[in-house]
Amino acid sequence: MQADTLKVERRSHWLYVTLNRPKRRNAMNRKMVEELTNVAQTVREEGGVRAVILRGADGHFCAGGDVSDMAGAMNTVHETDPVASLNRSFGHMLEAIDTLPCAVITVCEGAVMGGGFGLACVADVTLAASSARFRLPETSLGITPAQIAPFIVRRLGHSHARRLAVTGQTIRPEEAVRLGLAHARANGDETVDDILDATLGRIRRCEPTAVAATKSLVDRTGSMPLAALLDDAATEFSALVRRPEAKAGMTAFLRRQPAPWDQEN
Amino acid sequence: MQADTLKVERRSHWLYVTLNRPKRRNAMNRKMVEELTNVAQTVREEGGVRAVILRGADGHFCAGGDVSDMAGAMNTVHETDPVASLNRSFGHMLEAIDTLPCAVITVCEGAVMGGGFGLACVADVTLAASSARFRLPETSLGITPAQIAPFIVRRLGHSHARRLAVTGQTIRPEEAVRLGLAHARANGDETVDDILDATLGRIRRCEPTAVAATKSLVDRTGSMPLAALLDDAATEFSALVRRPEAKAGMTAFLRRQPAPWDQEN
Amino acid sequence: MQADTLKVERRSHWLYVTLNRPKRRNAMNRKMVEELTNVAQTVREEGGVRAVILRGADGHFCAGGDVSDMAGAMNTVHETDPVASLNRSFGHMLEAIDTLPCAVITVCEGAVMGGGFGLACVADVTLAASSARFRLPETSLGITPAQIAPFIVRRLGHSHARRLAVTGQTIRPEEAVRLGLAHARANGDETVDDILDATLGRIRRCEPTAVAATKSLVDRTGSMPLAALLDDAATEFSALVRRPEAKAGMTAFLRRQPAPWDQEN
Repeated sequence: MQADTLKVERRSHWLYVTLNRPKRRNAMNRKMVEELTNVAQTVREEGGVRAVILRGADGHFCAGGDVSDMAGAMNTVHETDPVASLNRSFGHMLEAIDTLPCAVITVCEGAVMGGGFGLACVADVTLAASSARFRLPETSLGITPAQIAPFIVRRLGHSHARRLAVTGQTIRPEEAVRLGLAHARANGDETVDDILDATLGRIRRCEPTAVAATKSLVDRTGSMPLAALLDDAATEFSALVRRPEAKAGMTAFLRRQPAPWDQEN
Repeated sequence: MQADTLKVERRSHWLYVTLNRPKRRNAMNRKMVEELTNVAQTVREEGGVRAVILRGADGHFCAGGDVSDMAGAMNTVHETDPVASLNRSFGHMLEAIDTLPCAVITVCEGAVMGGGFGLACVADVTLAASSARFRLPETSLGITPAQIAPFIVRRLGHSHARRLAVTGQTIRPEEAVRLGLAHARANGDETVDDILDATLGRIRRCEPTAVAATKSLVDRTGSMPLAALLDDAATEFSALVRRPEAKAGMTAFLRRQPAPWDQEN
Repeated sequence: MQADTLKVERRSHWLYVTLNRPKRRNAMNRKMVEELTNVAQTVREEGGVRAVILRGADGHFCAGGDVSDMAGAMNTVHETDPVASLNRSFGHMLEAIDTLPCAVITVCEGAVMGGGFGLACVADVTLAASSARFRLPETSLGITPAQIAPFIVRRLGHSHARRLAVTGQTIRPEEAVRLGLAHARANGDETVDDILDATLGRIRRCEPTAVAATKSLVDRTGSMPLAALLDDAATEFSALVRRPEAKAGMTAFLRRQPAPWDQEN
């Protein structure tokens, strides 16, 4: 995959995507939003990738939206509401990443602000380096975390979402783990890269189709009645069990051997 | 109550239910699912039990679903989809326990996997012994935690549910408390049995009909508009206040005496 | 604003509201519920207040509903259901405070029970002094936390709400922070007043209209489909960006100066 604002590199089952505008602390401009959306679409269509690892170049994850792009949009005259359209495109990108069938990991270092905070909220596994500082600066600039807010509520719950809205408070790694914003953080014994390696090892043990089906099931919870969801889940379960992968998984488990999908490749 | 796979014992207000297939680390087979469902129905119909305490025989809570039962279901020919039906019966059991009007406690030791993890998620109070290891191994076997997933989302939130889906990571007692999966854990000062005793003492102070009404109110939150729920709650409140139990409770409170229901027997 | 059961004092952008029935540990009677509702309506209608700070007189926040008022309501004959009506009025008060467009802070000391617990659950920022003890005593009195329960579920999640319903357990400051009931607590280095000052400093940096818009966006999450919410958010964002405040905020940010709204007065 070609991209101007990203470095994209495939290794084994993993797709490493680096936000790559280090002079702007990887702030997201229109181009980066488009390229991230394209990466998500390609992963979804081509299959084969078992985890996408998002991180930022040169010690920062992402400083949020690029202010100069916003100014450009405001001066655009050939669209009805170019600012709304630019803003909404960021939400489409978050939705595209949020609904990926494979695992998504964010490795958070330095500034994790605005849109970067949003990416951390849609990842399945969010890892915080000691340097990570999570923040929603929007209200202090006189604007809102418009496309991010719903993902923040889902991730942190209503209480912390409202607190961050009114205070714009910076969250350090320890609090990020306490809030469920991050799942693990570097400490004296383990760097964030050590934790990433251990996480990839765990993801490798999980069978890709089962992972996709479980992510989908989790996402449907709450949007349909419980009994109907459990009925659907039972039917899906039966189909999954009848696949050769399930038989291989059970056999490997009983023999205490690695399953076929648990390989370096 | 008679049961093959359970030990069921009534003491005072409490019903102790022990998952009792210790050679299989109390893995749930079809029979155990049926017997747990029956216990829940009997408790609901007969009344009088103020807490159900679920634990496992011989140091493990429950290692999940029994794989051999699954194989049996796959070879059944007289049903349309016997695997889906077996799977769905497990969800019915979780729903039956989840909606009990009395308190439900799980005492988690050793393996708390798959269906055992699900039971921990529907309990009002989940206690973790030092030995407790919570895990969802399904995706590593090529299947899904189909009937459990919605209860996991409700208990841990979307973030941790998706993380566990893609990593299958083991949760130790300290993290279980941090995530709200468990409410308390044994430590150097208190064993899990000490904590259970203290919990039962607290439950004894709460009036059973008020407990049932509050559990129902909590469960309805989110499934109806807030104003309508508050209207219903006010009407229910008025009916509860007019009972002799409420008068006795207020009087005992003002006199700093135990309420009538706060008694050993 | 005049009030019998409250002390209401405006300083700079802040409105300090003290529950002021110290002989009853600031228990809420019908009058206090009315006066709190009126304060909320005045703040909403008049504008200009950027944070409401709720605390209790003399070392306790609020011991819950006043039992003697309840007795009075039960003896009223000119209403269809005066107890339900009294109870519902408390829910209307919580809703009025919950939906305020400005920041709401509770400073919790001593008893934070019943209705006091409810107020802590609707605040954007809840601070716990070392003396704070949060508790829902209702089920131990034979009644329910009827108007509070939905706000507890939203704040603590289903798991802790059900646990507190069946156990009536007391929550100390450390656990309150772990559960997201409180956002910060006093410790050896900082008193609750130090933390309050720091919080007000942060709130002052956030632009009031952007705060109101973000609170509203957070509150709408989950009650409408995600895509529709993101569409609305983009349109609102565009309108906010075009205001002079947003331009001033961006300029101040780039020049590393305080924004116009970040001033003492």
